[in-house]
Amino acid sequence: MKWTKTLIQTLRENPQDAEIDSHKLLVRASLVRKVAGGLYAYLPLGMRVLKKIQAVIRDEMDKTGALETSMPIMQPGELWRQTGRWETMGANMFKVKDRAERDMALSPTAEEETTDVVKGLVNSYRQLPLTVYQINWKFRDETRPRFGLMRSKEFLMKDAYSFDLDADGLDRNYWTMYHAYERIFARCGLKAVPVQADGGDMGDSLTHEFHVLADAGEDGIAFCGNCGYAANLEAAVGNGKEFSDCDSSIASCIEESKNLPTEVATPGAKTIAQVAAFMGLEANRFVKSLVYVYEGTGNLLRQGYGGRDGEQGTVLVCVPGDRDVNEVKLKHFLGAKTLALADNATVLAATGANAGFVGPVNPADANLRIVADVALKGATGRIVGANKDDCHLKNVDLARDAKIAESDYADITIVKAGDKCPHCGRELVIKRGIEVGQVFKLGTKYSAALGAVVKTDDLKERVMVMGCYGIGVSRTLQAIIEQSHDKDGIIWPASVAPYQVAIELLDPSVAEVAAVAEKLEAELEAAGIDVIVDDREERPGVKFKDADLIGFPVRVVVGAKGLANGGVEVKRRDEDKSRTRILPPADAAGAIKELLK
Amino acid sequence: MKWTKTLIQTLRENPQDAEIDSHKLLVRASLVRKVAGGLYAYLPLGMRVLKKIQAVIRDEMDKTGALETSMPIMQPGELWRQTGRWETMGANMFKVKDRAERDMALSPTAEEETTDVVKGLVNSYRQLPLTVYQINWKFRDETRPRFGLMRSKEFLMKDAYSFDLDADGLDRNYWTMYHAYERIFARCGLKAVPVQADGGDMGDSLTHEFHVLADAGEDGIAFCGNCGYAANLEAAVGNGKEFSDCDSSIASCIEESKNLPTEVATPGAKTIAQVAAFMGLEANRFVKSLVYVYEGTGNLLRQGYGGRDGEQGTVLVCVPGDRDVNEVKLKHFLGAKTLALADNATVLAATGANAGFVGPVNPADANLRIVADVALKGATGRIVGANKDDCHLKNVDLARDAKIAESDYADITIVKAGDKCPHCGRELVIKRGIEVGQVFKLGTKYSAALGAVVKTDDLKERVMVMGCYGIGVSRTLQAIIEQSHDKDGIIWPASVAPYQVAIELLDPSVAEVAAVAEKLEAELEAAGIDVIVDDREERPGVKFKDADLIGFPVRVVVGAKGLANGGVEVKRRDEDKSRTRILPPADAAGAIKELLK
Repeated sequence: MKWTKTLIQTLRENPQDAEIDSHKLLVRASLVRKVAGGLYAYLPLGMRVLKKIQAVIRDEMDKTGALETSMPIMQPGELWRQTGRWETMGANMFKVKDRAERDMALSPTAEEETTDVVKGLVNSYRQLPLTVYQINWKFRDETRPRFGLMRSKEFLMKDAYSFDLDADGLDRNYWTMYHAYERIFARCGLKAVPVQADGGDMGDSLTHEFHVLADAGEDGIAFCGNCGYAANLEAAVGNGKEFSDCDSSIASCIEESKNLPTEVATPGAKTIAQVAAFMGLEANRFVKSLVYVYEGTGNLLRQGYGGRDGEQGTVLVCVPGDRDVNEVKLKHFLGAKTLALADNATVLAATGANAGFVGPVNPADANLRIVADVALKGATGRIVGANKDDCHLKNVDLARDAKIAESDYADITIVKAGDKCPHCGRELVIKRGIEVGQVFKLGTKYSAALGAVVKTDDLKERVMVMGCYGIGVSRTLQAIIEQSHDKDGIIWPASVAPYQVAIELLDPSVAEVAAVAEKLEAELEAAGIDVIVDDREERPGVKFKDADLIGFPVRVVVGAKGLANGGVEVKRRDEDKSRTRILPPADAAGAIKELLK
Repeated sequence: MKWTKTLIQTLRENPQDAEIDSHKLLVRASLVRKVAGGLYAYLPLGMRVLKKIQAVIRDEMDKTGALETSMPIMQPGELWRQTGRWETMGANMFKVKDRAERDMALSPTAEEETTDVVKGLVNSYRQLPLTVYQINWKFRDETRPRFGLMRSKEFLMKDAYSFDLDADGLDRNYWTMYHAYERIFARCGLKAVPVQADGGDMGDSLTHEFHVLADAGEDGIAFCGNCGYAANLEAAVGNGKEFSDCDSSIASCIEESKNLPTEVATPGAKTIAQVAAFMGLEANRFVKSLVYVYEGTGNLLRQGYGGRDGEQGTVLVCVPGDRDVNEVKLKHFLGAKTLALADNATVLAATGANAGFVGPVNPADANLRIVADVALKGATGRIVGANKDDCHLKNVDLARDAKIAESDYADITIVKAGDKCPHCGRELVIKRGIEVGQVFKLGTKYSAALGAVVKTDDLKERVMVMGCYGIGVSRTLQAIIEQSHDKDGIIWPASVAPYQVAIELLDPSVAEVAAVAEKLEAELEAAGIDVIVDDREERPGVKFKDADLIGFPVRVVVGAKGLANGGVEVKRRDEDKSRTRILPPADAAGAIKELLK
């Protein structure tokens, strides 16, 4: 392909709305152009990459036996109502009415639709296992679209759905997909790490996200360098140790706990930071107390959790002063479908004080449920809000002074760097990640709601057991850039590069030089290598800058001076200039093939 | 691929909503399933065909130098407002608001969006010519979705847009695409005929539709068997002959015209059929007169037409009694953006009578504009409405008795079978067609509205000249079926068949038989042929019926009895049973390759 025959228009300036490198490079290298907020056109270069990633995904999906389908983007609202997601998807889902005023959704995902279609086709357990997938555009009405393709309103997604007779079948399909994902990302030249993630309503069920580690990532991930434990911060579990008391000052804690709770005036000191500064103590000597309201689902799937069925109400949540509440874990523990901090009036009615001064000792509502982090079990000598404005209590022994049910101690905090790994006890580190894929055991959530059953040999009906498996295709494209770039531009892995080789034709008007480039292009293309020839009448510096910006894996310089001096210059994008090889034109194709391996 | 590993669930019964064969077969052969009205899921078999058609289109588009892109499906309403199409697309376009209440459209086409993107990338005429294309889902809120994929709410379309400096460049691009389309449809095994079509607002500009001839087609096409003239009925031009007088009765016409117009009481006879029956005369002795209201655009692009700029008003339209008004031609002639039959009050005010009794002689409004078909020029001895209820006038000589401006005679009727070809004068026939593609010269309609200009060498700005080129990909899939099926099912052309060969494994549990099938499958797949092995434990009759229904081009029967009797049975789907070949298993692959050529 000749540069002048394709549509490349690189930019020197970063787009104003770009916050991260990959977004800047995407636009500057003319892979995409913004059409409107969160909506991007894929230009010829970007489209080439997108298609190569799709080809890798298709190949690996087909190898697992998954069957490619295509589901309508426009989905009947009725299906979403049957699973209750018409409401729970909220404003994130684009909703449309057709001319007959029927509610339609623009696919944010396709569990309902796929389950409904499969239900109409599969009657017997003999047709299982079955996995179908599609690669199609998905829609999400983001509050704040940003980071280019990372958080856009329209994005390309591969979504697969597996159907099995039982949990064992699902487990096999789950790991088949897990391993296919490992291969897909590896073939795209991407280091993607599988991390344990929150199973949502499925509770303890297995789910993994595949993350590309990058400072620009939106998700926090807890890693253990020792045993390999990796979990999304939403899901990362504490080490479960009770009474991880206030470390250095444990002696004084026990000492102080011999005394009964005593009021301390703390005027205006609402936050832990303020009251800790006011009292001259470490934050871990305090108990952070927050009032939440929630609505129960009645579904308590997570084993061992002590929430109450269908409960709807108010709860006081206590965590160590140097910790934050993990609302995802808390939600699961409560069996809640909604969870939010209580408003002022509710806080006052429940505790007798305003937020900042509430605590677990004698709240105004004597029956107020209190849920505390497991690390507070047996904690003594703590300072808590006094349930009285501008006042705290010291010398608090939670077991003695607060009414917290044994079953209401739970793991509800966000893991921090330096915490102990729940598996091996070594220290965890926290990294940032970009989620590019997820494998998820759905169980019977959708199949039960939509009546997707099969008949067994004894003619009994069994609800199919499902899994779902997503890859953000357009996001993967950008994640590759985020992981593989330098100050000059993108460094494409050969497998997904828009062109693997860029021939810099320095003197396009000199026939002999153009002929050398032409011949090399033909040789490489015959070997199945994608080549672009920069045939522009531009200065070498402009051409080299553009080639580095776009990031073709191999650059070949063909010019009159070079040829007079012995040959063409061949260099890999990820190598330093000093590594440039000077090769006779006849040897170039062979050498380039080696370099691309 | 083994039958039991893919998702095929054929149906015996036709879907209730299917009116045409291809729709019935699509569903019965389990290529697609309806998700809701006008929304279809592509099942694995249908997806395979859809991908093969796409591959053919991509290949031919790439060969022309067109560059693949992908434009967002969700498009800013603002772009549509700039070209005025936000309103004119009307209820056919799905409109959505995002959470910031911004108007968005779901792509019914992408002229605006593509022009806007190209405008941001192309500055110099040196970057032209440029053609970009995409294959993507399009949306249309059909009043009545029907005929399966033919008229659905969501459909796959290839849309290409060319950008040129001038009309010559556009012309080159136009014919490049035209010939690419011929190759695309031919490679899909489809006989698609290019027919001249209406150029819309572009007036006389060149446009062709590619039609698959089929009785189930929604469009009428006029054909000349002699010179090859073919035109969509909307666009088919009359032969332009003036005074094509009432044939057999021409003598009596001239005779009667010597008399002055005379009233004839025709109580209740409103239609031509009624009044012709009442008077015992042929319909062609009458003039059909209709009152239309229209709104002018001020754009009179069609050369030689005599409409008036920006006019808005009422017009009496006269055509021969055995003819119908072609409202598309009339609209162009009037330079109208809207055109509709007038309501009762308007008819009465303009003519003095109710519809059915109006005519060109002395209407109540003496200044009423009258537009007449060119075939009426010089017509004599005609019967027309008397502009008085229940009354007609006979002995009318239009030139003498009606005030029709010379320039208001025009070609405004729908061509009929037996009409003379406008090119060679032979008789036209009328056929039905399914439109699968269109090539269209847009000119500067979108580029001017959106300011898509390039700079020339003298730094002057020139508005780019555009063409657009569409192929209905999903519709093409169904058109192939409509054109190629019999009472037993589909007959796929080998190039786009979901599998080219079906091996009917009659005794899957007999190891030696299964081994023969396995070997043949491997041989064929090694040759790049897609094979499905029906490994179901089903009766041969069931398997054969399904293979015929789905329509695999070649069927191979591998069974214990056959092998004992000398070999495997090989038959093409489009051949009679009597042509079945019995071949030694070792020879089968070679023979099948020949059959697929």
